[in-house]
Amino acid sequence: MTHPAHLHPDRLFPASQPAQSIARELYPAVADLPLICPHGHTDPSWFANNGRFSDPAALFLTPDHYVLRMLRSRGLTYDALGVPRKDGKPVADGRTAWRLFAANYHLFAGTPSKTWIDHSLQWGFGITDELSSATADAIYDTIDAALATPDLLPLALLDRAKVEVITTTEFALDPLVHHQKMAETGILGRVRTTYRPDDVTDPSRPAIVDNLKKFAELTGEDVTNWAGLINAHRARREYFRRFGAVATDHGVPSANTADLPLIEKQALLDKILAGKHDAADAELFRAQMMTEMALLSVEDGMVMQLHAGSRRNTDPLLFATRGADLGADIPGTTDYVNGMRALLARCGNEPNLRLIMFVLDETTYARELAPMAGYWPSLMIGPPWWFHDSPQGIRRYLDQVVETAGFYNLAGFNDDTRALLSIPARHDVWRREVCGFLATWVAENRLSRSTAEELAKHLSYQAAKDAYRIS
Amino acid sequence: MTHPAHLHPDRLFPASQPAQSIARELYPAVADLPLICPHGHTDPSWFANNGRFSDPAALFLTPDHYVLRMLRSRGLTYDALGVPRKDGKPVADGRTAWRLFAANYHLFAGTPSKTWIDHSLQWGFGITDELSSATADAIYDTIDAALATPDLLPLALLDRAKVEVITTTEFALDPLVHHQKMAETGILGRVRTTYRPDDVTDPSRPAIVDNLKKFAELTGEDVTNWAGLINAHRARREYFRRFGAVATDHGVPSANTADLPLIEKQALLDKILAGKHDAADAELFRAQMMTEMALLSVEDGMVMQLHAGSRRNTDPLLFATRGADLGADIPGTTDYVNGMRALLARCGNEPNLRLIMFVLDETTYARELAPMAGYWPSLMIGPPWWFHDSPQGIRRYLDQVVETAGFYNLAGFNDDTRALLSIPARHDVWRREVCGFLATWVAENRLSRSTAEELAKHLSYQAAKDAYRIS
Amino acid sequence: MTHPAHLHPDRLFPASQPAQSIARELYPAVADLPLICPHGHTDPSWFANNGRFSDPAALFLTPDHYVLRMLRSRGLTYDALGVPRKDGKPVADGRTAWRLFAANYHLFAGTPSKTWIDHSLQWGFGITDELSSATADAIYDTIDAALATPDLLPLALLDRAKVEVITTTEFALDPLVHHQKMAETGILGRVRTTYRPDDVTDPSRPAIVDNLKKFAELTGEDVTNWAGLINAHRARREYFRRFGAVATDHGVPSANTADLPLIEKQALLDKILAGKHDAADAELFRAQMMTEMALLSVEDGMVMQLHAGSRRNTDPLLFATRGADLGADIPGTTDYVNGMRALLARCGNEPNLRLIMFVLDETTYARELAPMAGYWPSLMIGPPWWFHDSPQGIRRYLDQVVETAGFYNLAGFNDDTRALLSIPARHDVWRREVCGFLATWVAENRLSRSTAEELAKHLSYQAAKDAYRIS
Repeated sequence: MTHPAHLHPDRLFPASQPAQSIARELYPAVADLPLICPHGHTDPSWFANNGRFSDPAALFLTPDHYVLRMLRSRGLTYDALGVPRKDGKPVADGRTAWRLFAANYHLFAGTPSKTWIDHSLQWGFGITDELSSATADAIYDTIDAALATPDLLPLALLDRAKVEVITTTEFALDPLVHHQKMAETGILGRVRTTYRPDDVTDPSRPAIVDNLKKFAELTGEDVTNWAGLINAHRARREYFRRFGAVATDHGVPSANTADLPLIEKQALLDKILAGKHDAADAELFRAQMMTEMALLSVEDGMVMQLHAGSRRNTDPLLFATRGADLGADIPGTTDYVNGMRALLARCGNEPNLRLIMFVLDETTYARELAPMAGYWPSLMIGPPWWFHDSPQGIRRYLDQVVETAGFYNLAGFNDDTRALLSIPARHDVWRREVCGFLATWVAENRLSRSTAEELAKHLSYQAAKDAYRIS
Repeated sequence: MTHPAHLHPDRLFPASQPAQSIARELYPAVADLPLICPHGHTDPSWFANNGRFSDPAALFLTPDHYVLRMLRSRGLTYDALGVPRKDGKPVADGRTAWRLFAANYHLFAGTPSKTWIDHSLQWGFGITDELSSATADAIYDTIDAALATPDLLPLALLDRAKVEVITTTEFALDPLVHHQKMAETGILGRVRTTYRPDDVTDPSRPAIVDNLKKFAELTGEDVTNWAGLINAHRARREYFRRFGAVATDHGVPSANTADLPLIEKQALLDKILAGKHDAADAELFRAQMMTEMALLSVEDGMVMQLHAGSRRNTDPLLFATRGADLGADIPGTTDYVNGMRALLARCGNEPNLRLIMFVLDETTYARELAPMAGYWPSLMIGPPWWFHDSPQGIRRYLDQVVETAGFYNLAGFNDDTRALLSIPARHDVWRREVCGFLATWVAENRLSRSTAEELAKHLSYQAAKDAYRIS
Repeated sequence: MTHPAHLHPDRLFPASQPAQSIARELYPAVADLPLICPHGHTDPSWFANNGRFSDPAALFLTPDHYVLRMLRSRGLTYDALGVPRKDGKPVADGRTAWRLFAANYHLFAGTPSKTWIDHSLQWGFGITDELSSATADAIYDTIDAALATPDLLPLALLDRAKVEVITTTEFALDPLVHHQKMAETGILGRVRTTYRPDDVTDPSRPAIVDNLKKFAELTGEDVTNWAGLINAHRARREYFRRFGAVATDHGVPSANTADLPLIEKQALLDKILAGKHDAADAELFRAQMMTEMALLSVEDGMVMQLHAGSRRNTDPLLFATRGADLGADIPGTTDYVNGMRALLARCGNEPNLRLIMFVLDETTYARELAPMAGYWPSLMIGPPWWFHDSPQGIRRYLDQVVETAGFYNLAGFNDDTRALLSIPARHDVWRREVCGFLATWVAENRLSRSTAEELAKHLSYQAAKDAYRIS
């Protein structure tokens, strides 16, 4: 079969022989394995309601901050790209925005976004033409027409993508109405929630006092008292587990943890409830809550995910006009070894604790992450995250973590996406890169071919199930 | 044609097939493109006066701190290498120093200095013998003889190297006498100045108060008043633009910026003019001046270059005996995301702002630079700088910036050199490495060959013109 | 000859041609060169007494924190692995522990530990079967039987491994009784000590006051007086040199150095002797002692080794139950350029000073180490250390240091091991990687084949002798 260059069946495999052929031989053993998606941000209403997606721009463009930020960086405005404004003023309509996107698609040469979109267009819609001004309208129409068919409904897409398990992420105060509905329709279990209590653990949020009030109401606990606050989490975690949750998730600016005496914890809580905390208090509260969450994980076995190191909302103008998660979050340095000392000293050797670390500061891979995961039984290394979930990012990751942490301290892959259609594409890139990495080591006579195949399968499927205790 | 090993026509191309052949095919499309040199430190008197270079050591050895530092690190003294002393005591003459250099040329195996010098000897003088004790005198004599011919005069070299535009760098107080002469001889435009106001923005310089006094005299502004100080810059920038300047340049120890209220800015200026500032005041003043420069760029469209992160003059003995720029500047960690927050919040979304970031801390490539340039319309990433302008350095750079920033947020290449003869060599290394990088991606089926050729040409020529708004 | 996959004769060579063949051609020139082992932690009693090793687990498992930490990280306990407890409670016997190790040997896929162990089993015992549950007992028995033969005695192993020089590491208070015995048996010179005065320079050790008291007794100096303290070091260094020492070694958490006035040094010493110092005082004392050690090196010519950046004993539970050096030391960020400023300003240009830097923070390779070693005549870069002494670690190291520091500012290889049998394996990995790196550069037409061979030999043998001034 012929194929366009941007959809080459051997794409991403090593450039030279014999590694390329070895990768090509390893790949079929993993290409069609079911997808385990234990961390992500898809919308649970999709699976609860199984309704159609509205239009191509709403599917591929406006919710994808990877795509938006690149176009913005080259001078296109979010108005022209159809990104909604807080003030409700009009922005470009879907087709107009799509044309602008298509006309600038060359900007994505060499980016993972292009790889994912090219793959998605082929996988979802059979489109093999490359996006450009010339093809913009035809591709828009093809997608738009397909979105009206049953094949493109969310649950049909899960089937087609062989998604065995997918988790969404909800805040502690979320009532989980969509998951309640899924419990009724029998989808729950395949779709699961994740407990992300940032709304009640991060005092830098303006709504923190209100949120804690709601947390008390929701759980019937007295959260003005430290023990009550922890009980509220205990209750809410139990509630989330009823809706399939196997894990918690924590988005924090640093990897700091603390283990304070009760009297200091209570004093800190008092300050926060009184609205008298400063940035250092907020950091200390978050740090203490990480240890509390770890102790609850020791109790209930939920897997803890730490997503540390993003400096959020670095563009105040964007935040004021359109809100969060639109491309202005930038990574910073993160200190894992000092940061996690308190938590690990407290419960790092507990057999029931499982903590998966995600990092944006690649300098920690070989220096901190791999040595830590290669020592502590409770620690595993999550897959390359966010900007680093890319072919080169995956190579740097494997290069720097495997020798010290081994392959079996890795948590497999997470797609971590808001874009349903990019899920198969993202897993495919990971699987191709894993095959390419292992193939190169086979070609260097460092791994046998049978070990390589075993590891390729493990990292593509079972590692994620094991890491997240999904049975 | 046969060739010595150190001048192999395929040098630096990928080690294996098919990438090597693809690189070899891409290279001819870029090898002979004109050179755009938008940032560098050549001496403007060369182009104004078009006089002959004195001798081989003065051309290749004593002004090249890359070469001097390596020889020094292996125990050779700057006296023996002919580097002038502040106290005027005698140092080795040119030929003696040259022989010492030649006898130790093996120390440069694997360094970019060797690549540049080997290339320069061939390109400039047709010398294909490798430098060594055995060849030292013959090569010295060949160069010395050639320097007396018209072919080796500065303007002839610009022609031979196909330099379309080259910029020098002058401090704010520089009268630009050489550029005035070039305006008369018609060279201006091809040779341009750059506004580097470190002499009046860096309070850690002992001469700062005197310099600000001269700045006032030169511009007729009252620089004791904040508005007057900014007006003085405004006037001086306009003066530099008359001599071809399209850009400003800022050499700063950190990437810190500030955006203070006027009353604090004035208080800071008062302190500095009174000579009562400490290191923190100096840092804050530099930080504020970065934002002021950005605001002036918004007004006048000059491209702003930020060269951050060098810890200058780390050897006090060297500085005392011979001065600056002789090899004792060492990079340090640099925090771009926190550092540039104030400037970007103030004017990062201004369409007229263009800020090119140069870094010495490679850990920021994937963690900070690429995410920032891939978001802010005003930011671009400069080429690998100083110690990182090398084959491996270019590979690390492309590996770590392209996927998040894309190719079109890169500012192409700068040779950034004081050594005129190294200019074609440095551009050639960049072009070879770009071809090699793209060829590998073609061989991995990630880019089509036509896209690779387009990108190779862009990064070799047009990217620099676009980035610096050179029409 | 056929061979099992895990012992392929071309292992670690580049994956593709022609680099693989070039590496295969370079390797024979270095494979059998004698071993120079100028830094390590083997037990001097082995060489003094030349007694037999007890059993396979005591040889390969319980003293190897690389191996123990990996098994622990996957949930095996140190009790089950036979690691002695401080409380003397029973732990698994050697054969039971060995079986557990063997059953989990797949966890080591891709780690340097597996490479070293596979090599050691073949080299030491002719074992070519891979370790597994199936082979555990047979391999145990083979090793156990061999350990009873003269071929496996320590001195026979030095001969077989062609160890020309090996150094052990002893604290300042060590009486060097084993080295005294070796002086009598004529082994001294081939086996040497190294002066590691951390026991009397690190005030964070609880025993510091006692140790300083013993230091005074041992040397007859009044160490309550700064000059006396330095004299005590002077005397002790002389004593160590009598037992072959050519170097000192300093294990420090940071690279900080200081150069205080005498009055402040004395005040600091007074505080420490009074037991009234805090963590900052301890850091400052260590920092000052680095400069003192450098000044003594200027006097006596001993080569100074700086092993900076490990955060020791991060697991308090492990430390309490079993002690140090069992896997819970984790690297952290290290600032060399600011840290070493005081020492270098004081004596960095002294021709007699030689300081070899070892780093755990790879981000400093290209940013700080290579620029510093490529400037200061006193500085050299040690080989990749600890977690980075691995195939990928060596590649990252060469990639990042060579272009700026050159090959001749590298100190060759150190095995730095406690495991005698791993010494040939570790040198072999270095030599293979060096050949592979150079072969790739030959294939990229960056080095001639003859230069590559010269550099391969230099880095495998002579570089270490030169760096450590071993004649």
